[in-house]
Amino acid sequence: MTKRVAYFGPAGTFTEAAALRYDPQAQLLPFSSIAAVAAAVDAGMAEEGVVPIENSLEGSVTDTLDLLIHESHLCIRHELVMPIEHCLLVRPGGSAQEVRVVYSHPQALGQCRRFIERCFPKAQAVAALSTAAAVEEMLQSQLPAAAIAPSRAAEIYGAEVLARGIQDHPSNSTRFVVLAHQDHPPTGRDKTSLCFSFEEDRPGLLYSVMGEFASRSINLVKVESRPNKESLGRYVFLIDLEGHREDPIVKEALHGVRAEASMIKILGSYPRYADWA
Amino acid sequence: MTKRVAYFGPAGTFTEAAALRYDPQAQLLPFSSIAAVAAAVDAGMAEEGVVPIENSLEGSVTDTLDLLIHESHLCIRHELVMPIEHCLLVRPGGSAQEVRVVYSHPQALGQCRRFIERCFPKAQAVAALSTAAAVEEMLQSQLPAAAIAPSRAAEIYGAEVLARGIQDHPSNSTRFVVLAHQDHPPTGRDKTSLCFSFEEDRPGLLYSVMGEFASRSINLVKVESRPNKESLGRYVFLIDLEGHREDPIVKEALHGVRAEASMIKILGSYPRYADWA
Repeated sequence: MTKRVAYFGPAGTFTEAAALRYDPQAQLLPFSSIAAVAAAVDAGMAEEGVVPIENSLEGSVTDTLDLLIHESHLCIRHELVMPIEHCLLVRPGGSAQEVRVVYSHPQALGQCRRFIERCFPKAQAVAALSTAAAVEEMLQSQLPAAAIAPSRAAEIYGAEVLARGIQDHPSNSTRFVVLAHQDHPPTGRDKTSLCFSFEEDRPGLLYSVMGEFASRSINLVKVESRPNKESLGRYVFLIDLEGHREDPIVKEALHGVRAEASMIKILGSYPRYADWA
Repeated sequence: MTKRVAYFGPAGTFTEAAALRYDPQAQLLPFSSIAAVAAAVDAGMAEEGVVPIENSLEGSVTDTLDLLIHESHLCIRHELVMPIEHCLLVRPGGSAQEVRVVYSHPQALGQCRRFIERCFPKAQAVAALSTAAAVEEMLQSQLPAAAIAPSRAAEIYGAEVLARGIQDHPSNSTRFVVLAHQDHPPTGRDKTSLCFSFEEDRPGLLYSVMGEFASRSINLVKVESRPNKESLGRYVFLIDLEGHREDPIVKEALHGVRAEASMIKILGSYPRYADWA
């Protein structure tokens, strides 16, 4: 049976590109929110789900983090990193000279702000719900318009690519995670994501938890905090570390964390992208 | 001369309420973005500027953090925490029964999602640029509409408050900071915010920096990471600690951090809100 992979759609977004890159053979099912992707996997409508988790310019996708912390029991089974190349799309035969409106998702507009200011100083930037929706709005626009979207959106919606790589910052990439009911067996080159919080409000406890890893030479790849949603100034901490949760020293460190934290949730162990790419 | 305080406006937003609470005597000047508030203070159009930095449900206001890290030389001179009470506003004489559209800023819509689903299952939620803009759009709407906004927006725009405290989560509060050219002299009950990053990608360095504070019993109130905007997986760390940058032990610890970090920026020392409220 063909594997079904849900993704944060619609078709023509960078998340679809990530899902295609992850499994070109899978049946891809678009969903309209990150929560809907998780719900689809949870309910068995798809075996796996692809969602963005972090961008090199914007930082964490907080919807994904908060879903993993507070709502979902799904695990991270894979990660992948995709370069983000924004393109300028117009109607077939359209030209850049006449553009009066530029549609895109607010993040994409922000990432191409200088390009828009330079090339279209008089155009109005208009927010769309996704880069794919921006292409549809551009095609239906009364005024001469352009959209900022991945090049694949041009194929899907029948638009024309006028310019490629128009983002202001050359190093723009997004990390995606594949959610599933189970995480990945050890491969020897793994990462583990976990979150934890403390009953008491003593930030020294975070230092002590980090010591569990430092004293065992376990490399922390990422340390992040999110509000615990109960009171301002109280946090849930997220850590990505090198190693698999079944590795003996990681197991030992996690045992130590368990003794200090009031809540700990292992979000999953999975192959490091650099190593499977 | 009356002090001029810039704020992230327009009038009728929670940031205006924070600015009023901070200095009821000041002349308040609204600006349309967080960057514009900083630019206004920088250029001398206002002595101080009020911007949101953190919400108990949504987490950090990344625009404010990135501005402080990468762009502005302004300091944090004060902080204040405001409870966020969302209200349902309609046209004068309007009723809840007929509401077909609910306007608000996406964050406010998100924070009142369950309320909207329960009370207006058939209404369409429409995003506005600010809670104040939502009230204006509601007043001009063709369809019977409501807006989610602070109660003060009802006074300013001549709308009627139909319901108060409609947020799904009772403990919703936002921390604001006052930006100025200089931070605050020591009061004995202070906080200090700083950010730093490392040349090398060795997360053990964060642990070591945290040790500079832990070993001196300096309490860390917050630890946060933001992308360094150069490559995925490289971060700038932000720390809020208890104490003033001129306190001898804080000075000593900061000296230690300086030796380990490739970049360190003291964002300011200021009175702890709990103590001046």
